[in-house]
This record gives sequence, C-alpha cells and structure tokens, in this order.
Amino acid sequence: MSFRKLSRSSTLVLALSMITTGSAFAQQTAGATPLADRYRASATRLLSAALADSSAYNRLARLTDTFGHRLSGSASLEAAIDWILAEMKRDGLENVRGEKAMVPHWVRGDESAVLIRPRQYKLHMLGLGRSVGTPAAGITAKVLVVGSFDEFARRQAEAKGKIVLFDAPFVSYGETVRYRFAAASTAAKAGAVAALIRSVASNSMQNPHTGAMGYDSTVAKIPAAALSVEDAMMLHRMSDRGDNIVVTLKMGARTLPDAPSRNVVAEVVGSEKPDEVVVLGGHIDSWDVGQGAMDDGGGSVAAWEAVRLIKQLGLKPRRTIRVVLWTNEETSGRGALAYRDAHATELNNHVMAMESDNGVFKPLGYRISGPDSALAIVRDIASLLSGIGAGSAAPGGSEADVGPLLERGVPAMSLAVEGTRYFWYHHSEADTIDKLNPRDIAECVALMAVMAYVVADMPGTLGRAAAH
Amino acid sequence: MSFRKLSRSSTLVLALSMITTGSAFAQQTAGATPLADRYRASATRLLSAALADSSAYNRLARLTDTFGHRLSGSASLEAAIDWILAEMKRDGLENVRGEKAMVPHWVRGDESAVLIRPRQYKLHMLGLGRSVGTPAAGITAKVLVVGSFDEFARRQAEAKGKIVLFDAPFVSYGETVRYRFAAASTAAKAGAVAALIRSVASNSMQNPHTGAMGYDSTVAKIPAAALSVEDAMMLHRMSDRGDNIVVTLKMGARTLPDAPSRNVVAEVVGSEKPDEVVVLGGHIDSWDVGQGAMDDGGGSVAAWEAVRLIKQLGLKPRRTIRVVLWTNEETSGRGALAYRDAHATELNNHVMAMESDNGVFKPLGYRISGPDSALAIVRDIASLLSGIGAGSAAPGGSEADVGPLLERGVPAMSLAVEGTRYFWYHHSEADTIDKLNPRDIAECVALMAVMAYVVADMPGTLGRAAAH
Repeated sequence: MSFRKLSRSSTLVLALSMITTGSAFAQQTAGATPLADRYRASATRLLSAALADSSAYNRLARLTDTFGHRLSGSASLEAAIDWILAEMKRDGLENVRGEKAMVPHWVRGDESAVLIRPRQYKLHMLGLGRSVGTPAAGITAKVLVVGSFDEFARRQAEAKGKIVLFDAPFVSYGETVRYRFAAASTAAKAGAVAALIRSVASNSMQNPHTGAMGYDSTVAKIPAAALSVEDAMMLHRMSDRGDNIVVTLKMGARTLPDAPSRNVVAEVVGSEKPDEVVVLGGHIDSWDVGQGAMDDGGGSVAAWEAVRLIKQLGLKPRRTIRVVLWTNEETSGRGALAYRDAHATELNNHVMAMESDNGVFKPLGYRISGPDSALAIVRDIASLLSGIGAGSAAPGGSEADVGPLLERGVPAMSLAVEGTRYFWYHHSEADTIDKLNPRDIAECVALMAVMAYVVADMPGTLGRAAAH
Repeated sequence: MSFRKLSRSSTLVLALSMITTGSAFAQQTAGATPLADRYRASATRLLSAALADSSAYNRLARLTDTFGHRLSGSASLEAAIDWILAEMKRDGLENVRGEKAMVPHWVRGDESAVLIRPRQYKLHMLGLGRSVGTPAAGITAKVLVVGSFDEFARRQAEAKGKIVLFDAPFVSYGETVRYRFAAASTAAKAGAVAALIRSVASNSMQNPHTGAMGYDSTVAKIPAAALSVEDAMMLHRMSDRGDNIVVTLKMGARTLPDAPSRNVVAEVVGSEKPDEVVVLGGHIDSWDVGQGAMDDGGGSVAAWEAVRLIKQLGLKPRRTIRVVLWTNEETSGRGALAYRDAHATELNNHVMAMESDNGVFKPLGYRISGPDSALAIVRDIASLLSGIGAGSAAPGGSEADVGPLLERGVPAMSLAVEGTRYFWYHHSEADTIDKLNPRDIAECVALMAVMAYVVADMPGTLGRAAAH
C-alpha cells in the first residue's frame, strides 16, 4: 500500500463513491430473485474449495521464500513474475501474459545514520523510497527535533544547515504518512540539509519503515530517511533535555534509468460476453525490505488463487474474469497506469475492478466505490459470505491500482480486513508470511472468488462510476 | 533476566518456598494489630510520593539514553555505575560505594549469518552470549533443521558436519530457553559444526534475541547464534520443501580475561538495629543490544528510587535498608556471588532481599520465597497496595541475584508484574524505555518502597528460609 492510495481513498474516491451514475441495473433487479439465492450453490462450492486446504498460504510462502522482496527494477521482481506466469499456465488459466510497463528504478545503496553526539550510537534507519543520496562522506550536522509540522513552522528559523527530525506520533496512516511524503521538502524550504522522520508505524520493535517520499520541484532535493520509532523518541528526549545532537547520515540512494517490468495478466474467458471483464488482483512489487508478504504478495496470491479455483471447479462465467498483478505500485504506480492505457478501449466493458492491498488478514467483507446503486447489489452478494463473518459491504473500495480504472468509470472494490497489526509490519523487515495464517488467506481467496464470479456471471452489472 | 533465574525459580526456589523454618514471628504477631494498620500512614506517604511525578521514568530514560546497553566488561557499564554512584551521593543516601566483583568479559565482535542456498539472503541473527566465535572465514555448511530436541534425537545421524537449526516454537521462557542454553553442545555431540536456534521470544518483528548459552565440558565447543523467529521459520519451510540449505556463519565472539566491575551499594542506615539489613535491587548490567531498559535498568531504578523516597520523606526505619544494583547478572551472575561472599558474615542479619527483574510493567503484587509463615505477613503488607491493584502475594519470589542469599536462608522477594510483552523485547534491540510507562514504573517504586520500609521497621522478621 502506497501513499497515493491513502490520499486518493481519503479524498477523491470517497467523493466518487457518493455519486450515482448508473442505476439501470438496480431497477432491473428490483423484485427479482436476490443474487444470493441464485448463486448460493456456486458460492458454497468456491468457499469449500478455498477453505479445503492451505494452498494459498503455501503458494504465498513459496513466492516469498523463493524470491524475497520485489522492488521495481530488481531482478527478484522479474524472476518472481516469470515464475508466476509459468505457474499460471500450469494452472490452466487462459491468455497468460506479461504486459510491459516501464518502471522507475530507485536503488537504496549502502546507508547508515550514526549518532555522534551526545553519544556514539548506530541508529536504526531506512532511507525513504525515491530519496536522493548523500555525498559519499555523508552529511554530518546538528539535529533539530520537532514533533509536528506545526512545531516546525514555528521553529523553522532554527533549521538552516541542520538535519530536521520530525518525530510525529502515529495517528493513522493517512494522517501520519504526510510526514514521510513531505518532510524533505518542508525541511529544505527552511534550509535544512537532510530530513529524518519517526517511522510511520503503529508499533515497533526497532524495525524502521520505508515507503515513498516526494519532492516539491521548487526546492532543493535533500535526502530523507526514517528512524525506528524507538530511536526517534530517544533523540526527542535528548533534545528536550537540551543535549547537542549530531548525526552523520550516509545514503547511497540513487535513481537509475527506467527499467522494463510487467503486469501479470491471466484469464478465465467469458462464455457469453468475453469482451466484458471483471478484474481482480494485487500488486506484485514490494519494497526492498522484508518479503512483501502482506504488501502485497498476499493480495496477489489471493486474487490468483480465486481465479484458479473458478477454473478448477469448471465454473463458466458469462463474462471474462481477469487476474492482474500490477507492477510498481509502491514507487510510482506505473503498472496501474500501463494497464489503464493498454486497455483504454476496453474500459467501458470493464464491469468491476477489485484489489486486495491491506494484508490478507481475517476478512470482514467488501468495500465498493461506484454508483450508489451498486452497494445494494454488493451487499446482496456479500451475504453469501456471512457464514464466515465476512458479509459486510460498505462504501470506499478503491485501492492504488484500481484507482485509475475508477476514474474511467469502472466500479472499484476491495476487501475489508482486520487491520489491527498491518502498520506494525508494513514497509519493514517484519513484512513476512508468518504474521498471516492459512485460514485467513483462504477466506480472502473465497471472498475474491465469490464476488468475481457472481459479478462476471450475473445478468446485469454494477453500473458505472462517475468518470473523471 | 538470565537462564539461571528461570531454572532456579522453576525448581529449587519453588521447593524452598514450601519449607517452613521460622514461624516464631507469625506466632508473635497473631492477634496483634495487623501491620497494614500500623503502617498505613507511611505507606500512603510513600505511594503519594512515588506517584506524584515521573522521576523514576525520567531517571531511567537518562540512564539508558546516556549510557545505552551495559554489557559486563564494557566501558558503558562502568560509566553508568560511576554516574549512579555520583547521583546516589547527591540523593543523600548513606554509605554509597561500589563493591568490586571480577566479571567475565565476553565480546560479540563482528558477526553475520548469510543464507547461500537456496537463495542469497542476509539472515537476522545475534550470536548467543558466551559462545565461541568461528574462524575468520566463517563456517559454511549445509543446515539440518529440526523442530525440537526430540526430533534431533531421532535425526542426529544427519548432523555430522552440518549447522543444526533448532526451530522450536516459544512455549514459555523456562521451557524454551533450554534450546538457547543447550543447542550447541547437543548438536556438537552429533558432530555438528555450529548451532542456530529460533530466538526465544513470544513475538517478533525480525528482532533476534541473544542471551546466555552454556557448554557441556565433555564435547567440542561450537559457535551458537539465534535467528529471528521469522528467518528460523523460513528455513524450516525451505527444509520441509526439500531445499538444500547452506549458510555461512561468521562470529567474531571471544572471551577476554575477567574484568573488574562493581555492585552498586547505598543505604538508609537503621535507627535501632543498623546491623539488620533489608536488601532491594535489580541488576545494572545488560546484554549488548537494545538499552537494557526492561532488563534490568527498570528494576535497578525502581529499587534506587524507592530508597531515595524513604530517605527524602525522612522515614527512619529501625533496620538498615540497602539498595544493591548487582553487576554481571546476564553472563554469569558473578555480582550476586560477590555480594554474597563479601557479606557472608552478615547474612544471618539479612532479614529480606528483594529484586525486580521482570520489567517494571504494571505491578500486581509480590512474590515471596521463604518460610511459609512469611506469606501471611507479606499478604498483610501487600494489602496496603490494593488501592492500585497491586495487593496480591504469592509464593515463588526468588530472582537470579537474590537466589544465592535465599540459599543462605534470607527470604527472597520479587514483584509480580503484567508480563504479556516482556519476551517480545527481552535481550533484543527492542528492549528500550518507550515500551514502559511512567505510571507503571512509579507503581513499582511504590511497591518496593512500602515493602522495604515495613519489613525494615516492623517489630519482628519474616523468619528464615531453609538454608541450602
């Protein structure tokens, strides 16, 4: 999950979800047999198959154990994509292919942050994604510690020539990620030479968290890194005591020329309306720490397994079901844009696009961004999952990679999952599969499979979202 | 908290606590005014003073921020001791002194564990304390993964020339720490060249946990290290899939000649029976990762602050109250033995010894190892803390540093604390003060102060434990 998704879901998408543009289907189905009754037997088969074993968990374990993390531009991402394409063919999926996308190629390089005063100490740090590096000798400077942008605004006269640490406590991802994104340029405007932030995380065991940052093009680009929550708090305490704090920051980060990558695409072709498409997926790239098991190997495998089960059970939906594993969600979202552009002429026939990108924890139900009328239909279908406690449906279903499709009118959906611990692990070394459990992943597979199948097979559609 | 404490508390001490040797006092007080009534006013003053501010938390923060971790033999341990001695004199405590103890001087050196096959990956590792190192080029060998000693016993014919990974899930510290202590010699007996364990931890965010290991003198000493829970589980999954696993382990660990250290000692001298002594303390050394805030900076500061408050409030106990911050608990317990030996002739006049070494989390009450009759007295005193939910008293109060005193007949006490998260952080980089909160620490101070003062002032004693 990137910054963009949050900014989008908190503003644009929530607004979009309120706008009704296509209520034809809602009228069409009024008084007819509820979809839940019509599809109960198929849903039961999908649910049973998904919950029968740990195949999704095992596939995710094999993916993450074998290839590790999968940064855009890395060999491990492309090797993982090669393996997935081969496996999808073995699964018997149709039209299996990698669709090319050029992606930014940011590399971390060697990096460190060492506290020089008041005592020598190696800080727990991770450079922020897309940051520039430092000179080879590093940047050694006094540190100005502030607790918020507001405090910085009051104290910016002190920032010149310093490294500014924004030690902002976690409130929510959407709120606190502003520091990750904007710390560098905010500090640079006041003449700072580098920026540090407290990791954007709701718990910590000295694991720093990376993620995308951005530069304001009107000011100098200065390097930016996250400290562990613990170390940021320690520097803040030292500052409160009046200690003179000096840090040497070294970052070998640099941006290489764009590299070729691929969106993974595979299908179960529709029996009656093959040109109408239901998309479901996750993003296959990750940050270069941990193993991207939650973000977003799990979502990728859940969507893939959902389509495999539909195929394996011999279900033949009227419309085409297409799994898409987008590349480059984390650093720039180029995979999502490449998909949108490569399929521009088909988007009017994209009846729904669903992404899982909040960790494949225990699912609670669905979220939907589209015409108001779609919510009732989704709620009807969701009731098929009420037996596993996942029958809810609520507005607000966009994720980073389906956002560009939503802007073209395609209803966007996501899974609502138990999210207590997601930001403990997110974008850190702790994003590994052991935090997940096979039953939860299997339930996520079931939710994606049932929704994709019903929406691909039902007589009408969810209508269109407001194109943008 | 070390291995020894657990092995002791789970066997010897629990047995000792069942033996009555000194019931004279219990008879003496039967029918008399309960101690709680007699000491309610003093206890209320101590409690109010302890809870009035965050001075204990702030002192612990200053200790850990300024000196960091405090491994036996390190300059940072001795600098911390110098600072504490100076602060104690400033506090007005009496007979402030460092009592010499020679301690083992194990150093970690540079270390790494790199997975070579099935893919290149830098494992999250920490060498175990007291381990030997590897040759400079490291040890590169196939890895045999087992889930338990039982499985190893069945498969030890496969171990020759290999690195053995014991991937044992956490059950309880007392149970699971057996792997940390005995993995190396168990593996060496079967011809293994090194041993790895899953970190002994009840949760993980890729933070490996160190701690003391031991060698069986009858077999070769091979190096031993802990992997993060995540990485150990990953290697186990690879093994289950039949992957050929190869690791290069490099450890620069070595044991230097014993180094001088000190137990920190300070007193409030008794007004009537100065030769009778109540001891309270924690251990001032730590492992060389994190900052030893929970293990055991917090216990050390809680005991110190308790005695400071007694002095500051002008309470004048009949007996002497002595704070002792033991050195070298973690690697060999030499501080505890040095205290016992230096004070051998006084131990008959040590009326009680209390240590906090389970983290200064929310306290629930007391634990006591001594004559059966002592439990009722402790329960009476503990009732003074029921207002803050800390009025419980139960058997089993020994900790590593008071254990040697208990063996000489001194009743041993400890704090019972909320322990849910202790083994998330213990012996890892995550042992930092931000996991604690000022109110909990202040309550621990109050518990130590009230118990120490009442036991030092009350007419009788707790009796004697069974000398050993």
